[in-house]
Amino acid sequence: MVSIDLFRDGMARLTGAVNVITTDGPKGFAGMTATAVCSVTDQPPTLLTCINRSSYAHPIFSGNGVLCVNVLAAEQQDVAQLFADRNVTMPERLARVAHERLLTGSPALSGALVSFDCRVTQQQQLGSHDLFICEVQAVKIGNPAAGLTYFGRKYHSIGLPALASALG
Amino acid sequence: MVSIDLFRDGMARLTGAVNVITTDGPKGFAGMTATAVCSVTDQPPTLLTCINRSSYAHPIFSGNGVLCVNVLAAEQQDVAQLFADRNVTMPERLARVAHERLLTGSPALSGALVSFDCRVTQQQQLGSHDLFICEVQAVKIGNPAAGLTYFGRKYHSIGLPALASALG
Repeated sequence: MVSIDLFRDGMARLTGAVNVITTDGPKGFAGMTATAVCSVTDQPPTLLTCINRSSYAHPIFSGNGVLCVNVLAAEQQDVAQLFADRNVTMPERLARVAHERLLTGSPALSGALVSFDCRVTQQQQLGSHDLFICEVQAVKIGNPAAGLTYFGRKYHSIGLPALASALG
Repeated sequence: MVSIDLFRDGMARLTGAVNVITTDGPKGFAGMTATAVCSVTDQPPTLLTCINRSSYAHPIFSGNGVLCVNVLAAEQQDVAQLFADRNVTMPERLARVAHERLLTGSPALSGALVSFDCRVTQQQQLGSHDLFICEVQAVKIGNPAAGLTYFGRKYHSIGLPALASALG
């Protein structure tokens, strides 16, 4: 049996893009920082994300059935921290970041490298988390920029080498 | 409806760790380069990966029911290319890289940042791909090193800024 600590130490070595996942609808707005996002298939365009069932945001995502994955640019480290801060309410988070709505009503954050606006087509329990399988309804490509990533429990910049040392 | 090209252009902006996923068992050995790997939960330690059902390797992974996710270090770009090269047979790929076996018999590649040796607990069709839900049976942590990532359809180094410009 693998210990949770060993698993986490291992996963700290799997680089992840830093994303803010948002939703809005009958259950209200929620938005949170997450790295667990993965492309599944392009027939039809589909991605997945994993959300902890014990999180405050889980019933909001689950009840709305829509979400937008915003892939953050390197200069949006403050946005990543804002949407991971338990002391900031959901409405406050949204009020502090410029955004627009694409098709589902879930906020697409300004400055993101890309936003994937999605309808949740399947939700499946796996241990402590739910897997959300999402069909992409709209894509907004942002301006070219370095990406914000998480590796070794630290933020890093990727794509523009000149920026790497500033964040590394 | 989102076009496949737009979806792919968007996904090119989602940084992914570069991994080689291996399997060995009754159906023989297979190994391939993949970015679609995601942590799911640590209760119990679980990850997922997506494999194209039309790929040569798919029935081998599916038939063996075990796999090892090897997260590559920045200096293993040649390994990433080897395991993505359709002109190199599966046995040739394995013969060219030092490896050991952990618990399931799937090769753990030397030099990887970390290897997750897994048993497949669920397999689920999603469009062109199958989702493999995998319970982690063993973890091998490698030496500390920069990570190999894929962003903007290029390889990048992450974690040691001094190396970034060499690969960027």
